[in-house]
Amino acid sequence: MPDQMAIREVAFGKITGVFKRHGAVSIDTPVFELSRETLMGKYGEDSKLIYDLADQGGEILSLRYDLTVPFARFVALHGVGNIKRYHIAKVYRRDQPQMARGRFREFFQCDFDIAGSYPSMVPDAEVLKVLVEILDDLQLGEYEIKLNHRLLLDSMLDIAGVPPQKFRPICSAIDKLDKEPWEVVRAEMVEEKGLPGHVADRIGEFVVLRGQPLELLEKLTEAAHPLAQHPDSAVALEELRTMFGFLQSMGALGPIVFDLSLARGLDYYTGVIYEAVLKGGNVGSIAAGGRYDKLVGMFSGKDVPAVGVSIGIERVFAIMEAQLRLQAEQQAGGTIRETETEALVASIGGGMQPRRMRICSELWASGIKAEFGYKANPKMPDQLGYALKQGIPYMVLFGESEVEAGVVKIKDLDAGTEEVVAEVGRGLDGSPSDA
Amino acid sequence: MPDQMAIREVAFGKITGVFKRHGAVSIDTPVFELSRETLMGKYGEDSKLIYDLADQGGEILSLRYDLTVPFARFVALHGVGNIKRYHIAKVYRRDQPQMARGRFREFFQCDFDIAGSYPSMVPDAEVLKVLVEILDDLQLGEYEIKLNHRLLLDSMLDIAGVPPQKFRPICSAIDKLDKEPWEVVRAEMVEEKGLPGHVADRIGEFVVLRGQPLELLEKLTEAAHPLAQHPDSAVALEELRTMFGFLQSMGALGPIVFDLSLARGLDYYTGVIYEAVLKGGNVGSIAAGGRYDKLVGMFSGKDVPAVGVSIGIERVFAIMEAQLRLQAEQQAGGTIRETETEALVASIGGGMQPRRMRICSELWASGIKAEFGYKANPKMPDQLGYALKQGIPYMVLFGESEVEAGVVKIKDLDAGTEEVVAEVGRGLDGSPSDA
Repeated sequence: MPDQMAIREVAFGKITGVFKRHGAVSIDTPVFELSRETLMGKYGEDSKLIYDLADQGGEILSLRYDLTVPFARFVALHGVGNIKRYHIAKVYRRDQPQMARGRFREFFQCDFDIAGSYPSMVPDAEVLKVLVEILDDLQLGEYEIKLNHRLLLDSMLDIAGVPPQKFRPICSAIDKLDKEPWEVVRAEMVEEKGLPGHVADRIGEFVVLRGQPLELLEKLTEAAHPLAQHPDSAVALEELRTMFGFLQSMGALGPIVFDLSLARGLDYYTGVIYEAVLKGGNVGSIAAGGRYDKLVGMFSGKDVPAVGVSIGIERVFAIMEAQLRLQAEQQAGGTIRETETEALVASIGGGMQPRRMRICSELWASGIKAEFGYKANPKMPDQLGYALKQGIPYMVLFGESEVEAGVVKIKDLDAGTEEVVAEVGRGLDGSPSDA
Repeated sequence: MPDQMAIREVAFGKITGVFKRHGAVSIDTPVFELSRETLMGKYGEDSKLIYDLADQGGEILSLRYDLTVPFARFVALHGVGNIKRYHIAKVYRRDQPQMARGRFREFFQCDFDIAGSYPSMVPDAEVLKVLVEILDDLQLGEYEIKLNHRLLLDSMLDIAGVPPQKFRPICSAIDKLDKEPWEVVRAEMVEEKGLPGHVADRIGEFVVLRGQPLELLEKLTEAAHPLAQHPDSAVALEELRTMFGFLQSMGALGPIVFDLSLARGLDYYTGVIYEAVLKGGNVGSIAAGGRYDKLVGMFSGKDVPAVGVSIGIERVFAIMEAQLRLQAEQQAGGTIRETETEALVASIGGGMQPRRMRICSELWASGIKAEFGYKANPKMPDQLGYALKQGIPYMVLFGESEVEAGVVKIKDLDAGTEEVVAEVGRGLDGSPSDA
């Protein structure tokens, strides 16, 4: 619907504004992915949601499922050494394929990624800075960015006594902690995934740890702390120390919450992981991402380290729409504006169409967004009603007397004031102004 | 590629700027079309280029082939009475399906349409005004908009003695006149399509008629002219008289060429038809459209008259790219800019990364598009080389002595000048400026 599209455009504008401010380029990867097999290897269970094209002769194609895998393929295929890119585009998933009438689903994703070999944590910090700027600019409400590190998670499981082959299933149980209480997650670990109770309890001691990044880091790096002693987590903590310093330099540390319970589902993350959530609400994550150093190598055999974030843009649209509907209800019109029209050129009396068109053209030529009525002899209440309904702030008005005097009235609908101004000279094509 | 995407963004920005100036709304129709049969009825021969999705349970879907049919379906489905909308999106066609390895093809289309019952020729004139503004704003070179009317074409064939069932095949022969000389087209009419030679010759007398709209209209509406006497073409000529008046009021008549040889291929046009071409070049049409009053009714049974134009946006990209490459070659850098970055924050000496980040953040906070080097201790020639290669106009520079003095140098790379300015106070997070 047009009002929803108008909201999308505002969101897209703000988000791409941030990307461009950071010197990111835009690339467009194909909607078609070459083979289902390539995709299957990346998405695991979820690959049943992939759309295939019919075999009409030629390669078997699928529609893209996300923007990260096509980006990794792009980097691999073109031998890109380093790139900072954004991509806002539709992805396609067969939602609820178990239903008889498999519904189709298409929705926008919005990704920002930096690929390339760089000094530790520099791109990671910039990705987070970009995320902070976007969430600040969108003004969706108070938010926090939960942050963890894959190596911390793995070390913590190792320390607790989880065998390596159970790291991923246990991680996916931990991942549920934002929705379920510890008791439920603990039960899943012990009853479903066969963890001894004392091992689960040890995990429980770690995952409650969350706090201001530098404070929690201080605590975890105390010599006696098991995470400071484990070789993998020691590396991770050192990386985080570097990154927190960078974030502080960029004024982006404020919304970060260091949270040992964060365990993003996707397998391909190798370093920092993060997830932004609105505080107080119950809307779930509005952005998420992390470092994935091995994904490009799955296509080319040659690793290109990368880090990125995906904005949950459809959720952002929904929140903005709700905010705007609330605002609109509290105001007179009661609708969200569909257009950006600044002026309606209106007239009283018959035979004024060419004149409305000419005056409108003068406004267009000056870069003013303007409309004229299409009816041959439109009634003033209809024209005023249209302007109010559409939220158009100004009307340019004229009737016989204004034509004779060579003037137009400019009505400010918000202020309720009217001003008479001299009409601008001649038609654009040089025809007399009463053409 | 990033530089091509940058060009696309410029083109999209200019074009949507015009649409918004005219108060058009944006709608997003699904990429999936529900059944191949619905599409087949609209595209005739070309329907072999439609992409089908595999049958994975559920309805059989196809990918959209253009934006006009989905728009007509949208208007029909939602019972829209009137709408002025634009849509820029990808469409999908199986190019050269006869080849063993059927290549996939996806490309952008850019459509503007006005649907609804309005006084004669008002929306038609605004669509053409929009087209003129777009072509002026894009600065692709000198252009003309060839214009004709479906009823004029049919009347002219009727007068020449063509039987009604041969109107469409003969129109498609006439359509080739922009590429083939009259003799070739005449031969097709006589030899392939079985028209008597004297009938073809009569058509030949009509299709050479082209000229300034008001002048040719004057000639065709002389009482003795057969087109003035035929009831259908008399209606068409009266419509054109109205529209030319409107276009004159909007200063948009200049690029219009009234051309009786214009015969657009698609069957669904019912009124004015037009096609924009660049003069002198050989790039073919860069925009085309017309009135189609019966397409919505094919979905709902209830006609909603409509008129629109489709910009050949991929061709526009190609022309702009060629123009920019030529410009770039004539300048120092020799490349098209991929980003809009205004300043590179550069430094001399080690340990400056946090400071580069902090200064960059201050620029971002001021809305300035800026980048900082990712290397721990970047060399000045590398930083300068990067700025020049990327076409970044300014560098913000500092080393030990600037840090001590609390200043930065601002280097204008175009002018080759340097200025020393006081560094802005403290870090964004309140940390001391030597953080």
